[in-house]
Amino acid sequence: MRECDELIRFSERFCNKDFINKVVGVSSMETIVEMSKKGIKPEWLGEIAEYEKVELDMLIRLISRGEVVIPRNVLRNEDFSPRAIGRLMKTKVNANIGTSDDYINVDEEIEKAIVAQKYGADAVMDLSTGGNLDEIRKKIMRVVNIPFGTVPIYQAAKNCRKVVDMDEDDFFRVVERQAKDGVDFMTIHAGVNWNSIERLRKSKRLLGVVSRGGAITIGWMLHNQKENPYYENFDYLLEILREFDVTISLGDAFRPGCIDDASDRVKFTEFILLGELVERCREAGVQAMVEGPGHVPLDEIETSVKAMKYVTRNAPLYLLGPLVTDIAAGYDHISAAIGAAIAGMSGADFICYVTPSEHLALPTVEDVREGVIAARISAHAADLVREGQRENARKVDYELSLARKNLDWERQFSLSIDPEKAREIWNRRKSSSDACSMCGELCAIKLVKEAFDKN
Amino acid sequence: MRECDELIRFSERFCNKDFINKVVGVSSMETIVEMSKKGIKPEWLGEIAEYEKVELDMLIRLISRGEVVIPRNVLRNEDFSPRAIGRLMKTKVNANIGTSDDYINVDEEIEKAIVAQKYGADAVMDLSTGGNLDEIRKKIMRVVNIPFGTVPIYQAAKNCRKVVDMDEDDFFRVVERQAKDGVDFMTIHAGVNWNSIERLRKSKRLLGVVSRGGAITIGWMLHNQKENPYYENFDYLLEILREFDVTISLGDAFRPGCIDDASDRVKFTEFILLGELVERCREAGVQAMVEGPGHVPLDEIETSVKAMKYVTRNAPLYLLGPLVTDIAAGYDHISAAIGAAIAGMSGADFICYVTPSEHLALPTVEDVREGVIAARISAHAADLVREGQRENARKVDYELSLARKNLDWERQFSLSIDPEKAREIWNRRKSSSDACSMCGELCAIKLVKEAFDKN
Repeated sequence: MRECDELIRFSERFCNKDFINKVVGVSSMETIVEMSKKGIKPEWLGEIAEYEKVELDMLIRLISRGEVVIPRNVLRNEDFSPRAIGRLMKTKVNANIGTSDDYINVDEEIEKAIVAQKYGADAVMDLSTGGNLDEIRKKIMRVVNIPFGTVPIYQAAKNCRKVVDMDEDDFFRVVERQAKDGVDFMTIHAGVNWNSIERLRKSKRLLGVVSRGGAITIGWMLHNQKENPYYENFDYLLEILREFDVTISLGDAFRPGCIDDASDRVKFTEFILLGELVERCREAGVQAMVEGPGHVPLDEIETSVKAMKYVTRNAPLYLLGPLVTDIAAGYDHISAAIGAAIAGMSGADFICYVTPSEHLALPTVEDVREGVIAARISAHAADLVREGQRENARKVDYELSLARKNLDWERQFSLSIDPEKAREIWNRRKSSSDACSMCGELCAIKLVKEAFDKN
Repeated sequence: MRECDELIRFSERFCNKDFINKVVGVSSMETIVEMSKKGIKPEWLGEIAEYEKVELDMLIRLISRGEVVIPRNVLRNEDFSPRAIGRLMKTKVNANIGTSDDYINVDEEIEKAIVAQKYGADAVMDLSTGGNLDEIRKKIMRVVNIPFGTVPIYQAAKNCRKVVDMDEDDFFRVVERQAKDGVDFMTIHAGVNWNSIERLRKSKRLLGVVSRGGAITIGWMLHNQKENPYYENFDYLLEILREFDVTISLGDAFRPGCIDDASDRVKFTEFILLGELVERCREAGVQAMVEGPGHVPLDEIETSVKAMKYVTRNAPLYLLGPLVTDIAAGYDHISAAIGAAIAGMSGADFICYVTPSEHLALPTVEDVREGVIAARISAHAADLVREGQRENARKVDYELSLARKNLDWERQFSLSIDPEKAREIWNRRKSSSDACSMCGELCAIKLVKEAFDKN
């Protein structure tokens, strides 16, 4: 699709979708939920079931119940590599990239997208807010073939001189434009309304709102004294999304931005509103995920995750972090990896990476690699104990440890989460023995093996 | 003490300890448990209580019950900065350094020790097995003033041509020699005996034994068909340790080396043996900690930690990792940080760092920094929810988040876990606004503050 979006744009005006489908080779214009309900099983759905090692019928049931989503714009063709997110599926990882006003280097963002996919991200979100946003988005979409997400309100806000100058139509116009470009999932902060703002006012939050999309929405509402258009006209929003089968990711505008704000009434208010909106998405046949906090102390993560799962009736849960302390600037990928692993063990389905630059700067390409790997470690650690994936995940660790036992280094590298990095460290100080330079001849594995063999 | 060990050695031969005490300025030759039981309160103990923000009397009670240890060789003087490890205390971090046969660079090990202390390690263990071990140990002890630990059996093994050639006396001779050098705590694998080896034989472990000290002991036992001297002559061992008030860290020879081996019967057998030995340490007035696994899946960590706390009646728990997956070679500091945070939340007291080089090579100086910081993130995250430390720890996060709200970057850096790193990343791409280059003018904190201020 990516090479032929001009054709799509043109044909949209004159043709029905079946015709477009034929012309541009799109596999199907039916939404995934529609197909699941009708029992249609496109080939790629079978491939997903195989990848996830679940029964196809089970996958279809979960999709039609809204417990699994497959972010996949209806305009995608067979080049695309979709992912299933939700119950019983492997825990997935997203990488955020994109420019800001302060730093616009499109080539670097493209490289980040490539690196993110190379190191195992299951999705990429373009959060650009600087430069020509349409162009940047299209360029990035051209280099990756995994689910691609955006936060449309960023573009809406950037199109105006001042954020508060947007009119209601601007909110929807960008959604439509990006949907037509083939975006697979969009974060939309529809849970911001006068009710949640009232709860925010009554709270004693230290850091208030740390979600950019949430902040834009709140700023706009307060200035214009109008309800959040995404909330007020949610049905209209769903119509647009449904047309392109865009998965909505219900944004957590009120995620706590520090440990002191964690698990407060504002956050739970938003959970409830998002739960209501999930129901409406399901009724409208729009795939929906829900986004979660933020900064959460270790012992509150499980409750957060489970509460969100309860009130959304098992909507796929997409988590940023959570960060388990506020003081790890420079190492927030580690703070987030801790939180994400516990969240994953508690039921989170989709982990948004955090890079070492979080809270400080736009990430570098190397940061993207570090962030993706850290999130993948959490995801895999969670899969080792996750319903439906436990057996599959453990096979990998078993195989690696078998190679470790046999001191088979090449096989260890190939099964490692980042083979290049593992080999690089090992090569740095090659051991004179067949063990590694950490223990040399005093390798425990060797010693005991020899002792038992002899005795 | 460090500058005058020659004097001590000389005077030991001719003087009683009270005399040495006067000559070399050692503050007291009484053990900490003795002092606690007698109600003697040396000044440094008051300083520890202040640092930990606990009542001095409470600290003394915990020490005399063996729920807190203060590794501090009786030969230490006032230059030494002791740490309390155990219930209600801050979670502590240890950094392992040391040579191997494959790589002997004493200057680098010295630098690692300095870096470990600089970045916040509470203790350093010298695990050297290559080069002149006495010399290396003394050199490292000269550059750090935090608790210093060793695994004496490494030196005993290195002193012989073959590990199995050691005689029983060798096991104790090194303990005494290192105690006289001022070592504060020693890992001793006294829980290896014919019973635990029998359990190992009956198990179906994939990786068997991955503890070096454990492997040496088992190898020696099998070859010589003799009981582990540390187990068989445990009272004699305690006599030596008690004389110098060396804290014993009961080593986990049978810690699982992979996810597949986690939480098996062998491990629980060792827990029980270590619990018995803890009681004997307490009876003998020797401070004791217990070491724990290893590789453990996310959902088994809490049980592991609590079981160890139960069977040892709250002995301070010293954990390596645990690693939550086997496949993160190159990033095992992250895998360990995840495990350590959950372990800390569940009651672990002392975290041994893991570096990115784990399983692959001896760590570099930079690896040591990364490892220490990762472990400190886990320790602090645990302290945020830890009985006795919760309030203290949360103040730091509150202050940092307040600075974040005020966009006060200098204060954010100074409160961060690694101020240099945080400043370096921020400076990399300075924002044109007072926010950071991640969001620039679209900073959520700024947007909402302005909106609320105006409305």
